[in-house]
Amino acid sequence: MPTIAERYADKRVLVTGGLGFIGSNLAIALVEAAAKVTIVDAMLPAYGAKLFNIEPVRERARVNISDLRDAVGLGYLVSGQDIIFNLAGQASHLSSMAAPLTDLAINCQAQLTLLESCRKLNPRARLVLASTRQVYGRPQRFPVDEEHPTVPVDINGVHKIAAESYYRLYRDVHGLPTVILRLTNTYGPRADLQSPDKGVVGVFLRQALGGETLRLFGSGGQRRDFNYVEDVVNALLYAGADDSLIGGTFNLGHRKTYSLLQLAEMLHALTGCGYEMVPFPADQLAIDIGDYYSDFSKFHAQTGWEPLVDLEEGLAATLAFARQHAEIYLAR
Amino acid sequence: MPTIAERYADKRVLVTGGLGFIGSNLAIALVEAAAKVTIVDAMLPAYGAKLFNIEPVRERARVNISDLRDAVGLGYLVSGQDIIFNLAGQASHLSSMAAPLTDLAINCQAQLTLLESCRKLNPRARLVLASTRQVYGRPQRFPVDEEHPTVPVDINGVHKIAAESYYRLYRDVHGLPTVILRLTNTYGPRADLQSPDKGVVGVFLRQALGGETLRLFGSGGQRRDFNYVEDVVNALLYAGADDSLIGGTFNLGHRKTYSLLQLAEMLHALTGCGYEMVPFPADQLAIDIGDYYSDFSKFHAQTGWEPLVDLEEGLAATLAFARQHAEIYLAR
Repeated sequence: MPTIAERYADKRVLVTGGLGFIGSNLAIALVEAAAKVTIVDAMLPAYGAKLFNIEPVRERARVNISDLRDAVGLGYLVSGQDIIFNLAGQASHLSSMAAPLTDLAINCQAQLTLLESCRKLNPRARLVLASTRQVYGRPQRFPVDEEHPTVPVDINGVHKIAAESYYRLYRDVHGLPTVILRLTNTYGPRADLQSPDKGVVGVFLRQALGGETLRLFGSGGQRRDFNYVEDVVNALLYAGADDSLIGGTFNLGHRKTYSLLQLAEMLHALTGCGYEMVPFPADQLAIDIGDYYSDFSKFHAQTGWEPLVDLEEGLAATLAFARQHAEIYLAR
Repeated sequence: MPTIAERYADKRVLVTGGLGFIGSNLAIALVEAAAKVTIVDAMLPAYGAKLFNIEPVRERARVNISDLRDAVGLGYLVSGQDIIFNLAGQASHLSSMAAPLTDLAINCQAQLTLLESCRKLNPRARLVLASTRQVYGRPQRFPVDEEHPTVPVDINGVHKIAAESYYRLYRDVHGLPTVILRLTNTYGPRADLQSPDKGVVGVFLRQALGGETLRLFGSGGQRRDFNYVEDVVNALLYAGADDSLIGGTFNLGHRKTYSLLQLAEMLHALTGCGYEMVPFPADQLAIDIGDYYSDFSKFHAQTGWEPLVDLEEGLAATLAFARQHAEIYLAR
């Protein structure tokens, strides 16, 4: 029985957003699994894309800098691919409220252009969408399973639901083999620590590594689950190779949950940083979701996947990587 | 106690899509209620907009031909308005599948541009969105109330959900006074009988008036509810004037439901047209929702609104209007 990574040998794989945080970690794993990898990235400012992110496989992956909204160019890129992983996207909740039309272009127009290209030119390619827990909005029950209502609290969540719906419809109506994963808080090496709003772990890591005091909004009591990027990459590999997943939507998550205060205490223990409670900024409070942690038993039952890395171990590895490459990940 | 129409005297009202079917009927009612009406319409081909639609009030309404995606121009148009009715949109389900990026531009980008303009320039204007039963997809229970899951079966439904979410978020996050109505099959004078896919009533009316045989897909057993446009206009007037509706989402509908076969029989009785059953075309079947009829008790409880026109009476009036203006509504 081959491992999941072994099933990618000689496969032609496209990774959109492949120079970003999760996309680059996936691209590296795919190259190491002997896949023929093409990375597409628009290199939009403040989205975290860096050529350095794929340094370990720089000579063994094809990099194509272009925007998914360029339908003509995209046609060439999707043709002949066996599997297409979609990691491209705008992920900042605050930015989506400040610039909703940009979020629409990146998260809806680009995805729809990609699906149209596949429908016309390569309808057999497996399509994996990296979606987000943000589609659920404020949880009404815990842990949050895939049947939980989707009532997003920001424009980013609205557009991620639309993107998911595209993937579902292109499966149901046009027969494209699509799979949707809903990621929770992902952290790890190559995380974007420089953009202002890339999730609480990124912000805390930047503050801790910069010698700043961590700022907890409110009580810091909000519980969350966190996935180390290596675990997320493994989940994506299942999504791209396991036929039983086609047409499905699956949560990722972690059995262990932590309050943001516990996260701050852990970073204090690892780095010596201070932390303080501050009142919620109004723009953050308006779109805050409170507690969130997910039920990932549906994905586990079908694939056996479960997260292998615990938060403290993952944070230590993330800190070590960022310090080792401080000139890349911590420069202002 | 003033009637609902009397509450519009001297109000400044903007109607987007105001040269289209429902928008023009609303604009006429508003002018007759002594409102100061500005109509915005992009006059996109095949969307049903006609200057003739507002012939009765042509000299008493301001017509501005422009696209909502033109943010600069829109800023001038929304400023100073008391109430903004949003009837602009792409309503064809088949077209949304054939040209999904166009549907995205018309139904999402335009709505988001309008809301951004209001947020920046006129955050107090009442905003009414004409949404659609299409957001529910294939009904899981009957009658369909507002709590029914939204699992749309076509791109148009996906984008209408996104548009609704924008209105909800701009209310919750930015405080704009928004109201959402979910319309079911609407028919009546000024309906677009020339575009190929404007709902089953429009198609049947065109076939009946053109001396063609009505074509029922499948058994014709699908049950639907139908609203005469005058009833829909009254509902919109409530939505724009009744403060208790702000922040809400409401179904319209009709207590009487009919199968499509019954609709065909009724048109046969009114016009002498023939009708026949034909197999479902594949593209129609893929996005067909089966039966649909809604529970509009939430809107009724809050406003007292209920439809006053029955199907047979409404169809007779619609046929008479189309015949009277055949050169406008039936020309090829």
